[in-house]
Amino acid sequence: MDKLRINADRLWASLMELARIGATPKGGVKRLTLTDEDRGARDLFARWAREAGLAVEVDAIGNIFARRAGADPALPPVAMGSHLDSQPSGGKYDGAYGVMAGLEVLRTLNDAGIATRAPMEVVSWTNEEGSRFTPVMMGSGVFANVFTLEHVRAQRDIDGVTVGEALHKIGYAGAARPHRLGAYFEAHIEQGPVLENEAKTIGVVQGALGQRWYDVAVLGQDAHAGPTPMALRRDALIGASRLVLEVNRIARTFPDYARGTVGFLQVKPNSRNVIPGEVHTTVDFRNAKASTLDAMCAELERAASAIEAECRVTIELRENVYFTPCEFDAALVASVRQAAGALGCSHLDIVSGAGHDAVYVARVAPTAMIFIPCEGGISHNEIESATPADLAAGCNVLLHAALKKAGTAGAARAAA
Amino acid sequence: MDKLRINADRLWASLMELARIGATPKGGVKRLTLTDEDRGARDLFARWAREAGLAVEVDAIGNIFARRAGADPALPPVAMGSHLDSQPSGGKYDGAYGVMAGLEVLRTLNDAGIATRAPMEVVSWTNEEGSRFTPVMMGSGVFANVFTLEHVRAQRDIDGVTVGEALHKIGYAGAARPHRLGAYFEAHIEQGPVLENEAKTIGVVQGALGQRWYDVAVLGQDAHAGPTPMALRRDALIGASRLVLEVNRIARTFPDYARGTVGFLQVKPNSRNVIPGEVHTTVDFRNAKASTLDAMCAELERAASAIEAECRVTIELRENVYFTPCEFDAALVASVRQAAGALGCSHLDIVSGAGHDAVYVARVAPTAMIFIPCEGGISHNEIESATPADLAAGCNVLLHAALKKAGTAGAARAAA
Repeated sequence: MDKLRINADRLWASLMELARIGATPKGGVKRLTLTDEDRGARDLFARWAREAGLAVEVDAIGNIFARRAGADPALPPVAMGSHLDSQPSGGKYDGAYGVMAGLEVLRTLNDAGIATRAPMEVVSWTNEEGSRFTPVMMGSGVFANVFTLEHVRAQRDIDGVTVGEALHKIGYAGAARPHRLGAYFEAHIEQGPVLENEAKTIGVVQGALGQRWYDVAVLGQDAHAGPTPMALRRDALIGASRLVLEVNRIARTFPDYARGTVGFLQVKPNSRNVIPGEVHTTVDFRNAKASTLDAMCAELERAASAIEAECRVTIELRENVYFTPCEFDAALVASVRQAAGALGCSHLDIVSGAGHDAVYVARVAPTAMIFIPCEGGISHNEIESATPADLAAGCNVLLHAALKKAGTAGAARAAA
Repeated sequence: MDKLRINADRLWASLMELARIGATPKGGVKRLTLTDEDRGARDLFARWAREAGLAVEVDAIGNIFARRAGADPALPPVAMGSHLDSQPSGGKYDGAYGVMAGLEVLRTLNDAGIATRAPMEVVSWTNEEGSRFTPVMMGSGVFANVFTLEHVRAQRDIDGVTVGEALHKIGYAGAARPHRLGAYFEAHIEQGPVLENEAKTIGVVQGALGQRWYDVAVLGQDAHAGPTPMALRRDALIGASRLVLEVNRIARTFPDYARGTVGFLQVKPNSRNVIPGEVHTTVDFRNAKASTLDAMCAELERAASAIEAECRVTIELRENVYFTPCEFDAALVASVRQAAGALGCSHLDIVSGAGHDAVYVARVAPTAMIFIPCEGGISHNEIESATPADLAAGCNVLLHAALKKAGTAGAARAAA
């Protein structure tokens, strides 16, 4: 069993064939959720699943579950998956990899004639990207009771089409009832630079960073740059620049994968010889631990008060987003790490800075993720790239971690 | 002679009558250069000048010279003036005060029957504001040989009308030949907050700040805020924020009225959860001494290099404006200070942070300026405001400083 390996060529071929649906000229894919392209990808996945002997069901929000029976039907299934929809200028791997890797694991078990104790499933979650309909991670969010079905079915795209209408149009408004998962594993490209930078193949994902976002207004007094001496100024951009550097300092000094970003900044009146009277900006703080995230925010509020006094400006901080940090299941995370080690893959404990379906599924089932490197850390882009070797390595880790959880009930034939 | 005072009520009445030409609902004026409103103001000034017995001449760029003869016609005239055009939403005092104050000085000499040795002139310079036609300070610039007449006559407004056409249309394309000035005094509202803040009536203007302006590009790498650890970032906004604070530090630590402003800043892609890859911004440095201004710029370039290394960004500094500092004539500046003191006016040595006709005239004649406070330091605005008492005080300083330079040749009647 330890020598069992997935079929790397088949995994690659499946990914490449899937990528033809919604293919873009620059080598990416445009497969917005619940469009004809999304239907094409769903149909192909469902066909392959049935060809692999899996039982395919669709639930009311269009999530697809492809099940391989287990020796003990009373056990909840061990699921693997991700999503088939893409960004408008998306890549071939984001989401698609997790679904195709799950399928490849079950095909491998078929080839080896391995029966598992628990049933196993491949899941394709609806609308992870949120490009056409918000909220993001819609299908996994409904599955995990984060959103109600009624609420998300009423959401509209820019043409006024609702999620419910779009589901019916592509034939994926199903009737499957929600069910309990015994475990959930999601393989995914990292969408960040850490693995490539550290030259590691497998990211053992500990969880996802919590997020606290702010809208910030810095209010001073605009005045002509020439006649106004430095001491009489109330320059909003000086206050904002101080705040940008404080956000950076806090993120660099706090533990637990702290991150802090000011991505948006707008100056008023924004004229080269007028002292800025007003700056509107944002803060995006992330951390793996809720208590550390809160401490970062408290430190930001202290820093803002100090800047207000020193720069003679007013700073308004309005929190507008809060996502609690997500810690994945310790036993499953350990099994991912153990599988990577047993397979001889270099690996690194890592966190997800972005959201994934796994973050919502983790609320209702033991969950873990497996990251593999993507070139330059680039994702949500047509040039998104991953190597066949890394894709295969991640899939083999998925195979062994999931198989350990599902348990084996015997092999009809000898393993490859 | 020391007890001679201008007629404060007449000065105020003249300013208020002039302000009716192009008056705006909020109490300001809109008197764009070479429009019918400008012609109305010019005509009124010329009529008042002739009524005061002055000889009125207009030169080829429309500058108006109203001369009172001196006892010694061989001496170059001692001139006083400013401009009659305004910003689109301008105030009643910017420019108008300097012309009306010069006229009031000559009216006062008439009333007192004082003959001066040198001739005296009131000058109204064409198009100081530059709102309709560029360059700014056009008439004084031509007078001081900064621009050629041919060049500026060919400039067009947004409707395609040239300066030459507009001058002919309002009847102010004159034939007066350029002449040498023995001295030039310009009274003006401060257009800044210093006098009000220091509770002083008279600003003894030392000169005008030189300016060096830069366009700045800070180039990093945009990346998703979530998955990118702090240590792997190349955040252009961190580099730009450091630069903003360095500009501020330099301006606060260098001598000679140093000023530094970042008024414009644009972030790309400017999305709250994307690390900024590119920032475009500006630097406006001002200083009263050319050598100190250059030292500020050298310090900026050193600071930019340090930021490049520390923040892993590239900083491009492109200088796009250079105005050399202007030092006014030491003897005339001293006479302004002495007159203010003799009149019992509180006064302060000050510099002009903005451009004035006096800055160009200073290239061809000994020059000084007299500032008076304006409310809140606000100018180029319909709510621009100055008090009758301050306007009168500045005019009395102008009277005595100009009279000292022109010299007296005797009084036909007793001084008031």
